[in-house]
Amino acid sequence: MPELRKDAVSNRWVIISTERVKRPTDYSEPVSAQKKQGFCPFDYGNEDKTPPEIFAYRESSNSPNSAGWQVRVIPNKFPVLRVEGELNRRGEGMYDVMDGVGAHEVIIETPDHDKSLADLDVAQVEKVIWTYRTRALDLKNDIRFEYILIFKNHGEPAGATLEHSHSQLIATPIVPKRVSEEVAGAKVYYGYKERCVFCDMIRQEVKDKVRVIIENKNFISFAPFAPRFPFETWILPKKHSPDFLNITKEESYDLAKILKETLLKIKKALNDPPYNYIIHTAPLRHQDGLYTHWHLEIMPKLTKVAGFEWGSGFYINPTPPEDAAKYLQEIEV
Amino acid sequence: MPELRKDAVSNRWVIISTERVKRPTDYSEPVSAQKKQGFCPFDYGNEDKTPPEIFAYRESSNSPNSAGWQVRVIPNKFPVLRVEGELNRRGEGMYDVMDGVGAHEVIIETPDHDKSLADLDVAQVEKVIWTYRTRALDLKNDIRFEYILIFKNHGEPAGATLEHSHSQLIATPIVPKRVSEEVAGAKVYYGYKERCVFCDMIRQEVKDKVRVIIENKNFISFAPFAPRFPFETWILPKKHSPDFLNITKEESYDLAKILKETLLKIKKALNDPPYNYIIHTAPLRHQDGLYTHWHLEIMPKLTKVAGFEWGSGFYINPTPPEDAAKYLQEIEV
Repeated sequence: MPELRKDAVSNRWVIISTERVKRPTDYSEPVSAQKKQGFCPFDYGNEDKTPPEIFAYRESSNSPNSAGWQVRVIPNKFPVLRVEGELNRRGEGMYDVMDGVGAHEVIIETPDHDKSLADLDVAQVEKVIWTYRTRALDLKNDIRFEYILIFKNHGEPAGATLEHSHSQLIATPIVPKRVSEEVAGAKVYYGYKERCVFCDMIRQEVKDKVRVIIENKNFISFAPFAPRFPFETWILPKKHSPDFLNITKEESYDLAKILKETLLKIKKALNDPPYNYIIHTAPLRHQDGLYTHWHLEIMPKLTKVAGFEWGSGFYINPTPPEDAAKYLQEIEV
Repeated sequence: MPELRKDAVSNRWVIISTERVKRPTDYSEPVSAQKKQGFCPFDYGNEDKTPPEIFAYRESSNSPNSAGWQVRVIPNKFPVLRVEGELNRRGEGMYDVMDGVGAHEVIIETPDHDKSLADLDVAQVEKVIWTYRTRALDLKNDIRFEYILIFKNHGEPAGATLEHSHSQLIATPIVPKRVSEEVAGAKVYYGYKERCVFCDMIRQEVKDKVRVIIENKNFISFAPFAPRFPFETWILPKKHSPDFLNITKEESYDLAKILKETLLKIKKALNDPPYNYIIHTAPLRHQDGLYTHWHLEIMPKLTKVAGFEWGSGFYINPTPPEDAAKYLQEIEV
């Protein structure tokens, strides 16, 4: 019998449709097999083919926009939002519009064209995470911005237009809808229980054990109870922490470790699938510290989102999270 | 400069990102070119290879589950929800769950394997629409159901698993999130203006003229002000009408005509792209007649939904709706 399950934060229902279950290896062509040869602006030696760098981990002896870096941040060459100007909110008849003000940056995670994030060593992944934090803290100073979304598209089917491993960051002048909904849902739960919904979730997952994938001192990765997508995986700090921006050095190491291991399990289990991940953190100017709890959501791209999902907001997921977690647990990394 | 635009109903912001504009013909491989040979359970003569039919347009002289039909409705062989049983709502620790009760039917739109909906004559499209209405009215009698979502996936990238032209219908035991949000948004607007937001939209579109694609006596098709996707197109009854289920014979002809013409324009303009469409109508047991207004949303599948969209609920659309409408207007059909 299929099951309807409700996400405790967003109140979104999903359909766990076991009639349509697929084996993990039934899914798509591996991302690594899709690699093409050709010029890559993110490779060593091509630093002058990108917009000038904003930030980099590099030897102090070499100069910006030259080779010799480990992680490099540049403005997106085709930004979806522009950094100049004011919002200029206005009406157009009954409709509302404002200028597309924001920041759009690219984090090049490694100089190695052929490595994906899962292949990097933990120290390198930690540099990537610390770069996220560094850029977000800097952009927070711009009072026009209300939110910073950090995300990654891995593989062309997941929306990556360049194959060289990179993440992106978009600072927006309003709090995005999905984030507001999550904050609102967490607030309702807090109003009822006087506890953070994410902290409760962690407690239940640790007790139930059936959806946990990895745990280390500071972090846990698990398949959420009501996942939209097969093998959707969340990583949360175990300690109540509203802001990703407040991550400590020690925590960033543990996060790098659990992120690398989780991604590597997904890569091995699902034949290097395309995926997206996103970091949800509290809005920049928030006062929601009691009930928001930052987290990273990994969404492998294994199924197609079709008319039913677009029309209903319901997701159909053929893989129960308990099966996905069991499968990922057993993969050696 | 990119623009942020707000949908007047859902309050969802979208980014019209003109920096990334594509020409319509830059998009994907035509759906027709993806057709494969092979056995098709929806063809004439294969009626015994599908579950027994629920409804069909056929000559009275021939018997159910034989050839000679024009439109045929069957249960989905792999239903996402099951028609037997009760909801059995329950908790699992802090989480909520219920049984996946519902109906999942397939509407085979034509016996002709090689024709898409846009290619059918208006009388045949009208039969398809009247079939939607007939099945929805029947399923409404089942008091376990709260909503009926009618939708179509055209082409494999849009989620169609069989290439023979068909639509689907899923009856759900709860009102889907996207529908509740739309009803809630329309209610807020009504509370403020004492007018239906969709009626206001139609008035503004008719006045502005820049986003209208087709009009006939009873219907209008236009590019919405804040479309999530390039060439997203909505079809609305001009008269305030909450329920698709109350469509009249005359209206169903006009709907068939505008739907066929709109789809044909999209097919010609965009090289037979994959698309989804969905019908949004008032919830079955609703009391929202003053401010809900049924409509059909067509979403061509031309861009990829990636990390930013999943994380933010914002959509990035490279084609301003004014450009899309102008382009579609000029296509002769």
